[in-house]
Amino acid sequence: MRYQLYYWTGIQGRGEFVRLALEDAGADYDDVAREQGDAVMMPFLDGKQPGAHPFAPPFLRAGRQVIAQAANILAFLAPRHGLVSASAASQCYALQLQLTIADMVAEVHDTHHPLSGDLYYEQQRPEARKRAAAFREHRIPKFLGYFERILEDGDGRHSLGRRHSYVDLSLFQLMAGLDYAFPRAMQGLRRRTPRLHALVERVAARPRIAAYLASPRRLPFNEDGIFRHYPELDRD
Amino acid sequence: MRYQLYYWTGIQGRGEFVRLALEDAGADYDDVAREQGDAVMMPFLDGKQPGAHPFAPPFLRAGRQVIAQAANILAFLAPRHGLVSASAASQCYALQLQLTIADMVAEVHDTHHPLSGDLYYEQQRPEARKRAAAFREHRIPKFLGYFERILEDGDGRHSLGRRHSYVDLSLFQLMAGLDYAFPRAMQGLRRRTPRLHALVERVAARPRIAAYLASPRRLPFNEDGIFRHYPELDRD
Repeated sequence: MRYQLYYWTGIQGRGEFVRLALEDAGADYDDVAREQGDAVMMPFLDGKQPGAHPFAPPFLRAGRQVIAQAANILAFLAPRHGLVSASAASQCYALQLQLTIADMVAEVHDTHHPLSGDLYYEQQRPEARKRAAAFREHRIPKFLGYFERILEDGDGRHSLGRRHSYVDLSLFQLMAGLDYAFPRAMQGLRRRTPRLHALVERVAARPRIAAYLASPRRLPFNEDGIFRHYPELDRD
Repeated sequence: MRYQLYYWTGIQGRGEFVRLALEDAGADYDDVAREQGDAVMMPFLDGKQPGAHPFAPPFLRAGRQVIAQAANILAFLAPRHGLVSASAASQCYALQLQLTIADMVAEVHDTHHPLSGDLYYEQQRPEARKRAAAFREHRIPKFLGYFERILEDGDGRHSLGRRHSYVDLSLFQLMAGLDYAFPRAMQGLRRRTPRLHALVERVAARPRIAAYLASPRRLPFNEDGIFRHYPELDRD
């Protein structure tokens, strides 16, 4: 089946978690808004297309089905492409981990938009400095400590059992984004997150992921996305 | 099967979405921390119990399986208790809607904690006023407009097809919480959300939900939970 992925052009954003799974699986897909512009998503967001009505991108069209929410899309795709084991308990644990990644991603967004997504960063800079400081000091160590422990309690290399999964792809993206946004804070945590850093290297070396990362389809991180590098929000 | 639900004592919080499903289903469950205290959750949160390692409550024990993340717990429970249809596409849509509810719940939390969950509300009150204003003006209308439309595009009464589901229970809880936290803002939106208000009445009248809401098991909303009533955060 050929999929149609819909996500805002110009940023990696939450769409990137889905894109990495599609690329790693070697799935056929159209990145529709990148080809046709963001306006192509509006009939879906206005509820004027058949299938499930998405609140926001990313959403995926799979035949007649429309599926939104990144973690939900991944839970749909993964068993079809070998990115999670066939066991229901394992799929349940995968979704739990993915939703915890999603919680952290939402917190990353709010480091630069603590007051409102309807205001510019420049309109909430003092508040962003405070929120980013709390995020760096309390939340990054807590979340990454948890994920490091998940790897440690498995085989040391994979988040789920002894096999690669979409959760590993998302952990790769999470770490890449955090390294971009908070390089100094992440450097300070490096010795406490050896397994996560080894996972990043392992995922980046997977042939299809390596090809994708080297392609123009992989947009660079930038200051319109979720992971933004504002030096004043990183550690001194 | 008898379940064990684990969630912080003293608040409804995210545990309440799971509790409502268990109550509506007439499922057997122990509300473990309420019976034994919050400390009983620590071995799970420290990863010292078999089964999936939760990042945070709520989590549910179902035999040997441990399941965390409220939406994930609901996706697990619902097909076992007739709270979602047997169709995979319908379960996928249910999870999408539930995750959108979860996104709104996270935003509600941040109206009183825009800078950090590690600070008291009183330490971030000016920022909370700004975030709450943006939430009331932009986010409540956007989210509730979306959910109203979901009802409208169905049979007018249910979020999924023509049948009751766990998503309806969660919409009930979302509306109840918003009515508690932002009564004036919600009053202002009342005429634009008739179906959501009718859904609240329908759910509250379901016999097991009515019995639950009248029982001491239903804690009142309070200012330690996610939905907090601080008059200065509501509309003038």
